[in-house]
Amino acid sequence: MKIIRSPQAMTAWSENLRRQGVTIGFVPTMGALHDGHRELIRAARLRCDALVVSIFVNPTQFGPQEDLAKYPRPISRDRALCRKEGVDVCFEPTAEAMYPNGFQTMVTLPTIARRWEGEIRPHHFSGVATVVTKLCGIVRPQVALFGQKDFQQSVLVRQLVKDLNLSIEVVVHPTVREADGLAMSSRNVYLSQEDRKRAVTLYKSLRAGAEVIRRGVTDGKAVQSAMAYVLKKEPAMTIDYLAVCDPSTLEPLCDVTSRVVLLGAVRIGSVRLIDNLLVALPRRSFK
Amino acid sequence: MKIIRSPQAMTAWSENLRRQGVTIGFVPTMGALHDGHRELIRAARLRCDALVVSIFVNPTQFGPQEDLAKYPRPISRDRALCRKEGVDVCFEPTAEAMYPNGFQTMVTLPTIARRWEGEIRPHHFSGVATVVTKLCGIVRPQVALFGQKDFQQSVLVRQLVKDLNLSIEVVVHPTVREADGLAMSSRNVYLSQEDRKRAVTLYKSLRAGAEVIRRGVTDGKAVQSAMAYVLKKEPAMTIDYLAVCDPSTLEPLCDVTSRVVLLGAVRIGSVRLIDNLLVALPRRSFK
Repeated sequence: MKIIRSPQAMTAWSENLRRQGVTIGFVPTMGALHDGHRELIRAARLRCDALVVSIFVNPTQFGPQEDLAKYPRPISRDRALCRKEGVDVCFEPTAEAMYPNGFQTMVTLPTIARRWEGEIRPHHFSGVATVVTKLCGIVRPQVALFGQKDFQQSVLVRQLVKDLNLSIEVVVHPTVREADGLAMSSRNVYLSQEDRKRAVTLYKSLRAGAEVIRRGVTDGKAVQSAMAYVLKKEPAMTIDYLAVCDPSTLEPLCDVTSRVVLLGAVRIGSVRLIDNLLVALPRRSFK
Repeated sequence: MKIIRSPQAMTAWSENLRRQGVTIGFVPTMGALHDGHRELIRAARLRCDALVVSIFVNPTQFGPQEDLAKYPRPISRDRALCRKEGVDVCFEPTAEAMYPNGFQTMVTLPTIARRWEGEIRPHHFSGVATVVTKLCGIVRPQVALFGQKDFQQSVLVRQLVKDLNLSIEVVVHPTVREADGLAMSSRNVYLSQEDRKRAVTLYKSLRAGAEVIRRGVTDGKAVQSAMAYVLKKEPAMTIDYLAVCDPSTLEPLCDVTSRVVLLGAVRIGSVRLIDNLLVALPRRSFK
């Protein structure tokens, strides 16, 4: 496995392979790789000839009060995982190379960024949209994979790639969960032993929402209440939002009439957790 | 010469050639091609194997009170010019193909867009930055050429290409002028016969600024006054701005200590004209 730090060298590597007709797959990460990333990398491995994983803790998507400084950076372990999974290049640019003096371009998606994570983390999505545009410019993949865990981010990236004509196939891979159902996240290491046990309540709450939809409830507010009911039984957790949304626009739905996504964000102590569940309506029988 | 309307077909054409090691040159235009464009196209022809010219009157870079509807669109004449100059593809997307329903991504360069044209035309440069990003994504050139006439735009495009890692060489080609010195522009056709004669005063004013710099004046305000003095003799013209700037940042300069760009924007009746001049300091003699 090659470790590349310079954006120019990364582009040269990719361009050379593209000229040979090689399909390049790309998994952008902030490192601190867990089994969710491993699944993403394996799914990417099946879809491309050459596979690039980037490890870059992107400063522009963190708010001033957020965890940029303490974000975990176990680089040797990350590289070992990549090597084991057959990654061809680990791209590890520095912040200085990504954002040199004079850098000023921002990519924004105002409609998608208006709600949910975007409302709570004001500049987060412009940071994400800008770094994804840059990374795609540098790595030049034909396929890029993102985890469903960050659902709003995946909707944003799909729209971005379409809007800016990046000609990249965006694949969103299902969330990988711990044995109890907690969505895997690099931030789970922040949880105390007690809070780790409580954390699964977020997933349970989403499951409760899915359950009432399957039983035929179509009122968005009622679904939301069913989710909130579960979470409120765990007083250590504060709800940031619980929502029943259209999976393509992320607009909240009053009426559940087709496929929906249930979104949830909570805080336990100083740790924020997000999760989501795609839910299909109960099957109609066609005669 | 091929005429391509679909962005997907354009990308497919380019990708196929790139795989064969072909260098693609790109001249983005809004049509209404004049001798300035012809020079750009010829300069591009010398730098690439395959040459793409886009003709797209981009709605998002026009303000609500601006000339989008009446902007000249002599498409047959434009195609004939392209054909004659050896253009390989004339890319003519529709506004619907460029901005389909749900489109929302904007690319902004807040520092460069803050002053001069950006101050007078608030959303102009985000429209330009977004469409240039899109066109580069669709056409995938290795080289793109822009006219020096839109100086601030050329600075913006250079920064954009660098910031978003587009791996495109940006070439800025000198302004082509009419016999009397007026910078060629598709908007010159809006001028009445009388205003056409007056219009050259903008160029004369920039020349006057250059002249006092050559004579050793280093005070930015004094250079500006010399320019304003010339323009004020033509009462039909209103000054939007006259500025003495750093050519890379476009920040106004109090002291002329190295290469500068003189920027000017005026109105005659309802027509706006812009122009600029790069000026080197008087040569020092090295012993």
